Amino acid sequence: MPRVAIIMGSDSDLAVMSKAADVLDEFGVDYEMRLISAHREPELFFSWAKEARDRGIKVIIAGAGMAAHLPGMCASLFPLPVIGVPMESGPLSGTDAVYSMLQMPPGIPVATVAIGGAGNAALLAVRILAVSDDTLLNLLISYTETMCAEAEKKDHHLSAVGRKKYLEEGKRIGL
Amino acid sequence: MPRVAIIMGSDSDLAVMSKAADVLDEFGVDYEMRLISAHREPELFFSWAKEARDRGIKVIIAGAGMAAHLPGMCASLFPLPVIGVPMESGPLSGTDAVYSMLQMPPGIPVATVAIGGAGNAALLAVRILAVSDDTLLNLLISYTETMCAEAEKKDHHLSAVGRKKYLEEGKRIGL
Amino acid sequence: MPRVAIIMGSDSDLAVMSKAADVLDEFGVDYEMRLISAHREPELFFSWAKEARDRGIKVIIAGAGMAAHLPGMCASLFPLPVIGVPMESGPLSGTDAVYSMLQMPPGIPVATVAIGGAGNAALLAVRILAVSDDTLLNLLISYTETMCAEAEKKDHHLSAVGRKKYLEEGKRIGL
Amino acid sequence: MPRVAIIMGSDSDLAVMSKAADVLDEFGVDYEMRLISAHREPELFFSWAKEARDRGIKVIIAGAGMAAHLPGMCASLFPLPVIGVPMESGPLSGTDAVYSMLQMPPGIPVATVAIGGAGNAALLAVRILAVSDDTLLNLLISYTETMCAEAEKKDHHLSAVGRKKYLEEGKRIGL
Amino acid sequence: MPRVAIIMGSDSDLAVMSKAADVLDEFGVDYEMRLISAHREPELFFSWAKEARDRGIKVIIAGAGMAAHLPGMCASLFPLPVIGVPMESGPLSGTDAVYSMLQMPPGIPVATVAIGGAGNAALLAVRILAVSDDTLLNLLISYTETMCAEAEKKDHHLSAVGRKKYLEEGKRIGL
Amino acid sequence: MPRVAIIMGSDSDLAVMSKAADVLDEFGVDYEMRLISAHREPELFFSWAKEARDRGIKVIIAGAGMAAHLPGMCASLFPLPVIGVPMESGPLSGTDAVYSMLQMPPGIPVATVAIGGAGNAALLAVRILAVSDDTLLNLLISYTETMCAEAEKKDHHLSAVGRKKYLEEGKRIGL
Amino acid sequence: MPRVAIIMGSDSDLAVMSKAADVLDEFGVDYEMRLISAHREPELFFSWAKEARDRGIKVIIAGAGMAAHLPGMCASLFPLPVIGVPMESGPLSGTDAVYSMLQMPPGIPVATVAIGGAGNAALLAVRILAVSDDTLLNLLISYTETMCAEAEKKDHHLSAVGRKKYLEEGKRIGL
Amino acid sequence: MPRVAIIMGSDSDLAVMSKAADVLDEFGVDYEMRLISAHREPELFFSWAKEARDRGIKVIIAGAGMAAHLPGMCASLFPLPVIGVPMESGPLSGTDAVYSMLQMPPGIPVATVAIGGAGNAALLAVRILAVSDDTLLNLLISYTETMCAEAEKKDHHLSAVGRKKYLEEGKRIGL
Repeated sequence: MPRVAIIMGSDSDLAVMSKAADVLDEFGVDYEMRLISAHREPELFFSWAKEARDRGIKVIIAGAGMAAHLPGMCASLFPLPVIGVPMESGPLSGTDAVYSMLQMPPGIPVATVAIGGAGNAALLAVRILAVSDDTLLNLLISYTETMCAEAEKKDHHLSAVGRKKYLEEGKRIGL
Repeated sequence: MPRVAIIMGSDSDLAVMSKAADVLDEFGVDYEMRLISAHREPELFFSWAKEARDRGIKVIIAGAGMAAHLPGMCASLFPLPVIGVPMESGPLSGTDAVYSMLQMPPGIPVATVAIGGAGNAALLAVRILAVSDDTLLNLLISYTETMCAEAEKKDHHLSAVGRKKYLEEGKRIGL
Repeated sequence: MPRVAIIMGSDSDLAVMSKAADVLDEFGVDYEMRLISAHREPELFFSWAKEARDRGIKVIIAGAGMAAHLPGMCASLFPLPVIGVPMESGPLSGTDAVYSMLQMPPGIPVATVAIGGAGNAALLAVRILAVSDDTLLNLLISYTETMCAEAEKKDHHLSAVGRKKYLEEGKRIGL
Repeated sequence: MPRVAIIMGSDSDLAVMSKAADVLDEFGVDYEMRLISAHREPELFFSWAKEARDRGIKVIIAGAGMAAHLPGMCASLFPLPVIGVPMESGPLSGTDAVYSMLQMPPGIPVATVAIGGAGNAALLAVRILAVSDDTLLNLLISYTETMCAEAEKKDHHLSAVGRKKYLEEGKRIGL
Repeated sequence: MPRVAIIMGSDSDLAVMSKAADVLDEFGVDYEMRLISAHREPELFFSWAKEARDRGIKVIIAGAGMAAHLPGMCASLFPLPVIGVPMESGPLSGTDAVYSMLQMPPGIPVATVAIGGAGNAALLAVRILAVSDDTLLNLLISYTETMCAEAEKKDHHLSAVGRKKYLEEGKRIGL
Repeated sequence: MPRVAIIMGSDSDLAVMSKAADVLDEFGVDYEMRLISAHREPELFFSWAKEARDRGIKVIIAGAGMAAHLPGMCASLFPLPVIGVPMESGPLSGTDAVYSMLQMPPGIPVATVAIGGAGNAALLAVRILAVSDDTLLNLLISYTETMCAEAEKKDHHLSAVGRKKYLEEGKRIGL
Repeated sequence: MPRVAIIMGSDSDLAVMSKAADVLDEFGVDYEMRLISAHREPELFFSWAKEARDRGIKVIIAGAGMAAHLPGMCASLFPLPVIGVPMESGPLSGTDAVYSMLQMPPGIPVATVAIGGAGNAALLAVRILAVSDDTLLNLLISYTETMCAEAEKKDHHLSAVGRKKYLEEGKRIGL
Repeated sequence: MPRVAIIMGSDSDLAVMSKAADVLDEFGVDYEMRLISAHREPELFFSWAKEARDRGIKVIIAGAGMAAHLPGMCASLFPLPVIGVPMESGPLSGTDAVYSMLQMPPGIPVATVAIGGAGNAALLAVRILAVSDDTLLNLLISYTETMCAEAEKKDHHLSAVGRKKYLEEGKRIGL
């Protein structure tokens, strides 16, 4: 039974929001992924959000761009944590979506992450579940250690080969 | 039977939104005024917005600050024109509300007016009704003529008394 | 006889503003489309805007970028609704045009929509006409239902094929 | 044993961050409140953040203004959820703090809430704890119902007394 | 016969625009000062701007806030230099007015000065007239010398009395 | 003898600033064009700006990007009109340059035009010279008439061929 | 002989820039403080900046608001470190000054600090001098320790008296 | 023994930060270059920053994008000058990084340079070292003279060949 829902209003957000799914897969956290628009399908959205808790959903990750009402409306219908991912879409580079999510009124919080930060949204969901799930907590600690070790390895490589060679290698492998 | 609904999520917006009511009163357009929050009362809001048309509402004027989802959610549930008034409330001077209203996705338009522009929102509602109401159209034309005449009178007064006296008079009457 | 005028100051806006024409075509609403600049042809513009109502125009949709005075000057000469479409043109991504349209002074409202939102501008014009035209109102309701059904279909397809296949299909058809 | 830590770098943030404490008191959630600066006391901060989990802390709420590194550095040392509250302090009205919190790099999420939104930060902490605490979940549901009932009461009062009387009453009680 | 026109759309701009008049008085440059709104009195404005050159006006200084179309519309009807003064009025501190003036399309230049910079607008007008008026040029050179001498005097006073005494004196004379 | 100087600090601005030269060529106004940096060649710049008037320069057009001090420093050393052209260069799309030019302190005006608006800067210079040069004034009037006629021709073509054909033709000729 | 110069263009910046003087006094670093405007006294400024090094100045701290050219012009004439302090003055809250200082072109660096951050500018100057002055380095280390101890003391006081009493005490002593 | 450390949190910043290394190479200043993330390797970072001074580092140049905590955390652990280079990475073009570095709280200064300005950061480091190193000071003076001579040469070339030929040559050599 999925503990996390990843939701977005448009399939143009799917590539970015898939990063959230990748992270949840990596942590072995079950999720459902839905394309539901609060604006174009208000009734369907309404039912979905109200019934999410009964279906066992513990955290909603909602990606949205521009006016970006989806996370806020989720937070008004679902009593557990809602994480908003502002999309970079449109001419304002996602700053419109940031403020539509961030500036929620008293009583209805949305946990907003970086523009396009679907991966961090999933990590935040895992941290939330890890409050009461020691397996996930241990996986998070390992994840952090791996991240740290990989960063250290790059630093050693830079010291070993020097900045010019390092940059050339990056170009060769297509970075 | 009211043809216009003036709606806002919080009574802190009431003083500004009353300017809309004043304008509608001046044009003799009936309206209902409601405090309904899309975030705090989603079910009530949902019913209200869906039933508005059946009750004869032709235009909704929705004032909202910060995340400002109210006009957009109205526009998704009500098929006729929705006018959004961004409130100046909060540390961002209303720019957050502007983008939450303006940047609606394809299919769901909101007619956004100036920050704090409740009076203009009402005039826009009157213009919308005047498309099929010649009495209102004639009142709009008179309104414009009066506005023009008043502006001209001030210009003549400036020419007559000079800028220094004009400014002193303004101070005397508390401008 | 056209009920809507679509106007813009430069043919560089024509591709975007054509989305408005497409929507009006879809709803069977007659329109005229004009390239008239308030800055380069002030006298022609002046006459056009003042005579628009007598020619039967009920709503003006004005697209403009940068300083973007066109919608505001329309609203000062034409008594019925004026909808402004801020163009994304120029180094400021359309934020200059947004504020030139939105921040109109008391008495002269412009209904501003999203940056580049010509399609929504046309839908707003249809909503305005639908206040007194039940045929259009019914078409709007069908439009909303179709939009909803299409969104639902995409969601079902995502559930059916999974996110990876969905994204691959999108690439294949050139999204 | 406190489950939540409320931390801030300067006592100038204490009045705002006290709103978080008020909300946690209302829900009966134990918390510790600390004045620790990541910049002025890096070693102390480092120890505190690393040991927080062992002391039973499940969620950190970190308030910070301007460069606002506190929540991000917490999230790098503490494996469970960190909520950032951007302060309105300084000439940029808190937008500097928003981006310092929001734009965290991949791997280290911060859950950012509204500028000055300490109350919502606490509600988000309660929602996070409620994932595995049904008592809190039920309290959240009651909280939402109360919020809804109070909003409805204000709407009824507006209908009963009218906007002019409502505004006068507000002035009388000092709103 | 006035060589400069100072124009603004609203008497709320009069106090700021009076700084332009003060500077022109100081240089002995004749001017006319008018309250004419391009939005509220489009026909009157149109005639005024088209006839300005025939009445001997060489430079127009136009102050405007918010949507701020006045300078741009002047520049489209009057062939000589138009200087725009963005007003600080409204919630956006004049940034809306800046972009409405600055971002004029090719063919129609407006010379924009600082927000609220009516004094500098007048100095710019004097510089423009001084291109063909050596008396004004010499006055400008004296003006610059005086400005320089006054600045130097303040520096000497700071050296003489020290920063603490200097600041106290400033408080005493109400700075 | 050149009456206008076109100056810029870097040859990366030359392509944009050449639009100013093209316009001056069109009006038959002599100019000098110089690459002088106020930052990299302060002494040379200083001499150049101080001697410009004696060499007969009546207007300086200064293009600059980013910190963009060039127009302001010109205005402090040269007593006649200085026009600033903010370059779009750098990550801030020219907004940095706008404010460095626009927000000059009292006493030292810069006439700022649109980002990248070198053509309009030259037209403004021509308008300034036309204050005392009727040949230029007549050329400006013709220029405006031509601009108007060309705009009208495009509008007629749109009416004649329709929007779809018009757009196709634009693509064919590489617009 | 002063090692640091504190310079500003206007005495309206003196109160803020005095914080820099206070910090230098605390560290026993000699400084000169001057009111010199690059715009109003370009020749005087030019001489002063060019001769600063010969007079023994090692670091210049330049405060400026709005167009804020002073630090950049110092950096172009003086070969040692220049620190810019953007003033909060004017309608843009100092963001104009930030970009005028920060966005210097290649070759001419300015070290920019926070808006209004004159105290930090002085600390940066002390850090720069401490590169070759162990007495200052030791004073910096003590300064940091004191800052840390004071922060810790406040935290202990909060734990001792609780947030409500702490806030009341703050009000009593006028915070 | 290196006197400067160039540090960044991610190898995606290496290409830009290499410009700093190039400048230091040009001046013969030894440096170490490290990939260390304050977020992903907080303990390693902590040790590195605390021990930097003992290893002889006199100046740290820290490049960082988005939340950009690296320079500020360096400045809190290292007592000598820290220079921050905001990266242009991410959807906000580096403005997020600017404010995270610039707006440091009292007591902990960071010397911020232009977005992407790694070359200027290195020049600032050289200026800082030149306070007590006359060899570097003389190299800086030569550097400035060369920069000036090159700028002058381009100006002469422009005068010699004219703007059209100059631009064509630029295209030919790939500018």
